[in-house]
This record gives sequence, structure tokens and C-alpha cells, in this order.
Amino acid sequence: MKAEIISIGTELLLGQIQNTNATYLSEELASIGVSCYYQTTVGDNKQRIKDVLEHACERADILLITGGLGPTPDDLTHETLAEFFGVEMQYHQSIKDSIQEFFAKRNREYSQANKKQAYLPETAEILNNPTGTAPGIVWKTEKNNKDIYVFTFPGVPSEMHSMWKETVRQYLLNLTEVSVLSSRELKIFNMGESKLMDYVSDLLESSNPTVAPYAQREECKLRITARASTEQEAQELISPVIDEIYSRVGEYIYGENSDNLSSVVDRLLKTHKLTISVAESCTGGLVSKRLTDNSGSSQYTGLNLITYSNKSKSQLLKVKQETLDNYGAVSEQTALEMSRGLQELTQSDINVSITGIAGPESDSTDKPVGLVYICILYSNQEYNYQLNIGNRGRDNNRWLISQHVLNYIRQLLN
Amino acid sequence: MKAEIISIGTELLLGQIQNTNATYLSEELASIGVSCYYQTTVGDNKQRIKDVLEHACERADILLITGGLGPTPDDLTHETLAEFFGVEMQYHQSIKDSIQEFFAKRNREYSQANKKQAYLPETAEILNNPTGTAPGIVWKTEKNNKDIYVFTFPGVPSEMHSMWKETVRQYLLNLTEVSVLSSRELKIFNMGESKLMDYVSDLLESSNPTVAPYAQREECKLRITARASTEQEAQELISPVIDEIYSRVGEYIYGENSDNLSSVVDRLLKTHKLTISVAESCTGGLVSKRLTDNSGSSQYTGLNLITYSNKSKSQLLKVKQETLDNYGAVSEQTALEMSRGLQELTQSDINVSITGIAGPESDSTDKPVGLVYICILYSNQEYNYQLNIGNRGRDNNRWLISQHVLNYIRQLLN
Repeated sequence: MKAEIISIGTELLLGQIQNTNATYLSEELASIGVSCYYQTTVGDNKQRIKDVLEHACERADILLITGGLGPTPDDLTHETLAEFFGVEMQYHQSIKDSIQEFFAKRNREYSQANKKQAYLPETAEILNNPTGTAPGIVWKTEKNNKDIYVFTFPGVPSEMHSMWKETVRQYLLNLTEVSVLSSRELKIFNMGESKLMDYVSDLLESSNPTVAPYAQREECKLRITARASTEQEAQELISPVIDEIYSRVGEYIYGENSDNLSSVVDRLLKTHKLTISVAESCTGGLVSKRLTDNSGSSQYTGLNLITYSNKSKSQLLKVKQETLDNYGAVSEQTALEMSRGLQELTQSDINVSITGIAGPESDSTDKPVGLVYICILYSNQEYNYQLNIGNRGRDNNRWLISQHVLNYIRQLLN
Repeated sequence: MKAEIISIGTELLLGQIQNTNATYLSEELASIGVSCYYQTTVGDNKQRIKDVLEHACERADILLITGGLGPTPDDLTHETLAEFFGVEMQYHQSIKDSIQEFFAKRNREYSQANKKQAYLPETAEILNNPTGTAPGIVWKTEKNNKDIYVFTFPGVPSEMHSMWKETVRQYLLNLTEVSVLSSRELKIFNMGESKLMDYVSDLLESSNPTVAPYAQREECKLRITARASTEQEAQELISPVIDEIYSRVGEYIYGENSDNLSSVVDRLLKTHKLTISVAESCTGGLVSKRLTDNSGSSQYTGLNLITYSNKSKSQLLKVKQETLDNYGAVSEQTALEMSRGLQELTQSDINVSITGIAGPESDSTDKPVGLVYICILYSNQEYNYQLNIGNRGRDNNRWLISQHVLNYIRQLLN
């Protein structure tokens, strides 16, 4: 069986709100193994809604429809569905009663406009909305001699979510008798998507499990998904593919599933019971912010410095004036002295310094935007790194530098 | 003329990423007065993409297509367009050259897979992508004896945005012969959308200029758009509405158009030639990062501290042990001592301290998540603030705290 998602609301067509409902339902459908090949968004207009329903009924058996269930004149979803499937509207006293009760409980006045919400297409069942006034429907109907299952939800995300979780999800699981669908994701850094394809494009042709690449902000991921009759069987299909990918590009894989570079570093620092401090120049606080993205980060970080000016590098980190004069603030020598000064100040197990040119323009020297020096002191060793990331705009430059810094820390602790 | 938005990508149908592109283009189309009645999302599948193109060509004249321009085998957009409109694919050496140059500049290796991106449908013009590898197309073609204008963009939002702004927006303005269409946006902080509506909802009924509200990450904006025969006439229509809005909610308006709280503070600091330092606890570097988001921020910030632990608050900021013992790290007293210690260390004109509970859980005290104390020392005055923002998740909590901090600085300097 195939599902199709239809979002109704002129505010979506004007870009006034983000359509998070379609994303939510798509992810939920994928998680229960129901295919969805199309999502459509249409305004509060009867003829255009019917046009969308026409196409959807040709292509799918299950219609998930959000929006247009409110009390105002431009809420047309149920009325249009009744016309499209050729049935009358039916009044439900029970809906009117529960809306009245809903308002009474909240000391709000029941409005005559809400009476409209008590009318549903004949033969449709009520889909209760425990957190709002607008009920949806669960409706098995017919079009072109084919069974069509229609579910409607209000556009308010929280109401839609609870109606999905409490009723519709299980209804669809029963309906589709889906087998198990299981996924694992590999997170990859420092290898572009096209380069990654040079190594794994043959695997993308596999059909069970499937392998799908995604480019994200300065990183990639591969999702491996198997369909089987048990979870164990699914895992047995996935494992050899995962192993194969590790054998090809393992050094670039930093984590799996919901991992990001910050959460991986968080886990390593907690596991090894190590403390860390950073002295940032060009990244301006971004690395410190990312180190503290994780709850419980006070276990490993107590003090970080943003030494943006030369003066602050000398004042707090004891970078020598002659080093700044001879090599400049953006140099391996300055990075080294910064991390040494930081170590003296913090006594942390790991001390990281970052100095570079974030752009969009270079500083007064002839050094290029994207040139960055990083020094990590750890376990009585000095690790020096030089990056030349080029210029992709200040914001992206700084993000990418922070990615590299977190990745260097990860590699040292792995 | 009518436009239709088509988003291509299986990751959208699986709910793996939010379709912000459709929202962006919808908002932009609305802003230039081009109607859009449908948005469709479809996966990386030739037959299904053609099905969507079929319907779109019946309903619209302008197709805005995002996604599927990458180098991997599942990137099928241009190939499918060529087949659908019945033309061959044509190789462009200039595209290959510019992709190679793009990689060379970033010290990344050119991959053979990228060669695919140099093929475009015959007769389509190249739509340059200044920030990425995948070019799009600008194509006037024909279907069912009707002119169809096709524009393709990569799925990466930042690349899509710059291609829209630099080329396609103007192209559509010329095409649709719209008279002058001019907009101004008012940026609003610390007033929720429904509260804002209590003050301005009557203005939303105006048709020229139109007034449209948008909710953004912890802030709102109002866009005022006028249609006229000259730019001056448009501005004359817009001005009184802007004045009216300022008179109603002016204290919440922090800027206009592309302003954000960080860029507004940047401008104020540069104008007043003031220096600033921050000592952050719960925000962990986010405020420092946002202060340095702007190019040239070294003019006003030289040293910021992330004093995450109590020890670092004592060590560098001289917060007294008895203050920490008696009032806790999250207290007005600690915030005050932090900013005093910071002032002593930095001699900056403005010294800001932030200490609070970022969540998701509280610390060992009985203080609630979202409780934050902020102290600003400026011009021999102490400004103390207390926030109770509740708990909307660590990430959002920290973002909202940084918004308030920047807004307090703005208010002091305004």
C-alpha cells in the first residue's frame, strides 16, 4: 500500500510557516515501512483541493491530510472530501458536546462558528483530537473501484502528533501488515559527497538493504535500510554492508545514527575522564559553544578563552610579543604558545588553541582567508595542524574550522 | 502567470530533512506578487518526477525545481527534464572547468562523478551557482503549445538562495512585468506572534501595501509590501504603515530588513566606538560567537571568557567563594561579581556576565531550568536582569538567552 501526504493551507503557499507536518508524517511513515512517493501542498480552495485528491487517489491508497479543519469559512477540508467522494455531510451531536466541554473547561466561550466542526463526511469515523477542538476522520471509502483510506488531522503540529501516535499509526500498522524495517546511519567527515561516491557508488545499487547518501552541513552520511520479517534478520542484512563501508572509508566515519562531532567528543571525554580547555581566536566561541552543547559538559570543561585580540593572547596566554611580531597572530608558533599558556592557566588534560583567518576578507597580512593553525597539547605531546579551507563565507568557514577541531580531538582520543 | 514549486529528493519523502526550500521560495514568490497554488515533493525517481512535471505544466507557467543536481546516480533532475521536454543533453566544458576550479580553490580533489554535472538539457541556459558546484538552469521551453519557464536549483539552501537572489528573482520580475514591488521588513523581539496580532491584526487586511507576519526562531517579523508604478510611490505607500506599526509596538522593533540582533549590536558598538567583553557560563560561548559573527568585530571585542566552572569564576573573575556558597553560581550576586571581575581584567567599556541553567535538567539546586541572571556594567552603572524563560530544550534555551543578552545590550546603546 502507498500513502500520500496532502497539506492544506494558504499560509503554507505564502511561506508564512514551515511545513513541519509533512516532514513529521514522512518520517513516521518511513519508520513503519509505508511508502510515500508524493507530498502535495495546496491552498484553501475547493477546486484545487479536488484536483490534488484526484491525482492522489490514482497514485495511492492511503491519504494523510493535514489542515483546514478549523471553524473559519476558509477551512474546507471535510466539506471538499464529502463532495469529492460523493457523500453528504453528517452532523455529530457528540462532537458539538465535546467542543462545548473543551471550551467550558478553559473558561472560553463556545462560538457558533465551531458548530461547523461537528459535520463530517457521512460514513467517516471520528478521529478524536484529545488536545484541541477540531476532530479528524478515519474513513475507508472508495474511488475508481479502489479502496481509499482517508485520515484528516488539524494543522496544529502538537494536535496532529498526538492523533497520529494514539490512533492512526497503529491503524496503518494493522492495515499494511508491514514487515520489520530497520536502518543504521554512518556519519562521515572530511570527505565530500562526490569523493565518497568514488568509493561506495556501487553499493547504492543494492535493493535490500538500500544504501542512501545524504550531504549535510560540511559532512555526509550514509543510511543503510533493510526490510525483513524480524529485527534480527534485518540486522543480518545490514551488518555486512556496514562492514564493507568501514573497510573502504572507515577512517572518515566518526559515528553512527544521531551522533554528531560534538556528541562523539562529549562521549570520549566522559569515557576517558579527561578535562579540556580551548583558547579560540578566529572561531570566536563556536568551539566552546559546541563543547557545551551537551548536557553534563561541566564534567570536562571549566574554562575556555576567546582571545580575539593580540593583547589578550599576551595578557592571559603569555604569547610573546616577539612571536606575534615575527610570525603574526596566525602562525604555528602563536598557536603553540597559546596552548602552552592555556595549559598553565587551566591545568586541563587537553588544551586546544585555534588561530586563523575566518574571512570574509583577510587581515592586514598576505595570509589567505581559511588559513588556520591549531595546536593540541595532550599527554605531554604537541599536535600541530594547519588548515587551508579556502573561503566559503565567514559563517561556513567558522563552522568548518570547528568541525575539524572537534575531529582532531576525536582522532586523538579514539 | 502562475508558478509551481517542485522539490525533488527521497530524503524529503523520508522526512530526513525539513523542506525549507519550498518555504523560502513561497515567501519570495509572494513578495514579488507571483501566485503559487501548489507545492509538490517527489523522490529521486524518473517516472514519478515526470508525473509531477505533467501536472505542473497543466497548472502553471513557471516551474521552480530544487534538488537532484548533485553528482550521484540518484541525482536525476536535468536528465529527466530533458526526457520530459524531448531534448538531448548537452555537455558544457565551461561547467566542468568551473567545477574543477571550485575544487582547486578549496584544495579538494575533483572527482569524475562531477563530470555529470556538466550536462544540461539542450537549449537551457546555465544558471550559475557561485557558492557550490552544481549549476542550475534557466530554460524557456514549451509543453502543450504553452511557454513553460523552468528554473532548477541545488537542494543546498544557501546555494539556492544566492542563485535566486542574484538571477532568478529579477528574471521573474521582468517576465511577469510586475510594476515596482517594494518591501520593508520590521524585526521584532520579545513579543510572541499572537501577542503581536492583538496589536496589528487590523493592518493585515490592507491590500496595498500588504502586511504579512512571519514567526522566526524566537522572534517575529512583519513584511510590508507595496505595488506601485515607481519606487518612490511604493515607499510613500509603505511609510505611513511603518510609522503606524512603530507607534503601536515600536519598543519591540529592533531593526529592519536583513538586520539580526547580532548585526544591530555590531553596528551600535562600531558607531559609538565602544569595546565589549562577555563572561559566559550557561551559554557556553554562544554570545561570544554571535558577537564575532560580524566581520570587523575585532574593533570592539578582544577577550571573552567562558567561565563554566565555579573554580574558573573564582580564578579569573575573582568571584568570592562565600558568594558562591551563600547564593550559588546562578544568582544575581554571582553575576554582579563576574562582571566586575571581567571589567578589572579587560578594561572594556561594556562588561557582560551571564549565569543560568540551560537545561535540559536543573543543577543540584532547586532552581528551575531557564532561570538566568545577567549583569551589564556600562558607563559606571550596573544593570541587573533576571530571566525565567522556562524549558524549551537546551539548544533553544541557550539561543533565547543569547537573544535576550544581545537585546539588552542594544537597548542600553540605543
